[in-house]
Amino acid sequence: MEKIKRNVRVAAMAKLLTESPNHIFTLSQFCTLFDTAKSTISEDIDLLRSVFEDFGLGQIETVTGAAGGVKFLPVVPMDKALSFVKETCVDLSDPGRVLPGNFLYIQDILSQPDKLETLGAIMATPYFNENPDFVLTVETKGIPFALMVAKALGVPLVIARRNHKSFEGSVVTINYISGAGGEMKTMSLAKRAVKAGQRALIIDDFTKDGGTVRGMMELMREFDVTCVGVGVMVQRRRSDTPQFCNDIRSLFVVEGEIDEKNGATVTPAEWLTK
Amino acid sequence: MEKIKRNVRVAAMAKLLTESPNHIFTLSQFCTLFDTAKSTISEDIDLLRSVFEDFGLGQIETVTGAAGGVKFLPVVPMDKALSFVKETCVDLSDPGRVLPGNFLYIQDILSQPDKLETLGAIMATPYFNENPDFVLTVETKGIPFALMVAKALGVPLVIARRNHKSFEGSVVTINYISGAGGEMKTMSLAKRAVKAGQRALIIDDFTKDGGTVRGMMELMREFDVTCVGVGVMVQRRRSDTPQFCNDIRSLFVVEGEIDEKNGATVTPAEWLTK
Repeated sequence: MEKIKRNVRVAAMAKLLTESPNHIFTLSQFCTLFDTAKSTISEDIDLLRSVFEDFGLGQIETVTGAAGGVKFLPVVPMDKALSFVKETCVDLSDPGRVLPGNFLYIQDILSQPDKLETLGAIMATPYFNENPDFVLTVETKGIPFALMVAKALGVPLVIARRNHKSFEGSVVTINYISGAGGEMKTMSLAKRAVKAGQRALIIDDFTKDGGTVRGMMELMREFDVTCVGVGVMVQRRRSDTPQFCNDIRSLFVVEGEIDEKNGATVTPAEWLTK
Repeated sequence: MEKIKRNVRVAAMAKLLTESPNHIFTLSQFCTLFDTAKSTISEDIDLLRSVFEDFGLGQIETVTGAAGGVKFLPVVPMDKALSFVKETCVDLSDPGRVLPGNFLYIQDILSQPDKLETLGAIMATPYFNENPDFVLTVETKGIPFALMVAKALGVPLVIARRNHKSFEGSVVTINYISGAGGEMKTMSLAKRAVKAGQRALIIDDFTKDGGTVRGMMELMREFDVTCVGVGVMVQRRRSDTPQFCNDIRSLFVVEGEIDEKNGATVTPAEWLTK
């Protein structure tokens, strides 16, 4: 068999590492795949690390110890994150997005896998060190964004339901208050979906008064699961926004009124601008 | 500035191309990024093409013409697809998955982003040449799988709702019959979500009598959208399965009865074994 060149190895390794974020590959796996010595693979990885850093493509990390190896973290550099979010802010501020009832149409953003994957990686970036075991969201609109956050973190996505369905087995159901009107809603999660002692990152697409987020936090308490953070793609902020909502990490902030003539004022969240 | 080496270029290009499937990059973009001549980039692409083919990592395609360039298609080779599906069949056949009422628990498969991305690429593979404009699914369980099919195809995911919500603007609603019991259900889609004349690939996570799939096909007719195919992750097949369901392309087939003692008999769909 002809010897496999470095060019070939680094191209294949770039694909394999990046398609499984936060997943540890042992050096032996690559040695077998390319029929090469460990020292050679180590040099390949050093090369990949510097390429990814130079071009802002994410981080290649070496994990030491018995279960050691190498993994890819889709960390988005802050300048890149901010310019991507700023671009999307311009799009979100378009008056054409304001629907009757002064709702902001964001469904098209939530439907673009590439864009969502970048936004998901930006949202995941502050949580790599928090080691969540899973991402939690509640149906429906937040699912695509939450899935991409889960993909970036290399963990499963757990979806709470508005109504429990029999094909999920026994469930835990909570009631919570949503919206200024104080409407009572329910949220259910299959018992087998999570385990006591795990760590959850809560993700949703939109929040105004934080009611749904509070519901998810309460649901996690019922399961004895620790909440490592709350991330929401778009946060509406007004004078009557509850204090509690300051702990939510969002990407986009909508301030003031939304109307069909002027559209919405959408800006990047503060933590992105620091 | 030091000249950027081939090693570095191919590693970065592998990452950039694969993270945006079916998206055309012009050679000029890469020339600018790496400060290199077009002929050099062409050689890099030839190298990448053969690496991806040799290791079964997908296809690098050259697109000719004015809007030409190069793109990545996450085509899964048939042998790799079959062995991945077979592995998952073993998991799905576990009696521990049978819930009271003889339902099959598949939520954990639907919650693993990496696994879903591979299954999504396998499902997308027969449809690259059909050029769908979007993937359509209906809430809730099918959304993660459908999003990964959409990502592989490089198109948006459009989600029909069980109940229309005001933050999506005006909607078209249809009624359809689901299940052997003949229950009447409704499905809605925002008018601004799709355009007449577009092409849709319909995706869901599970089907038995094809009722929901029929509903989605009818919804597309209301929008004057062509349906290029129907893909479903898990298909239940019994003696009374309607003829219509033979046109559904699934990944996993569950045949016969499901019970708590023996589990389910899950096999790869026929098209994967040819």
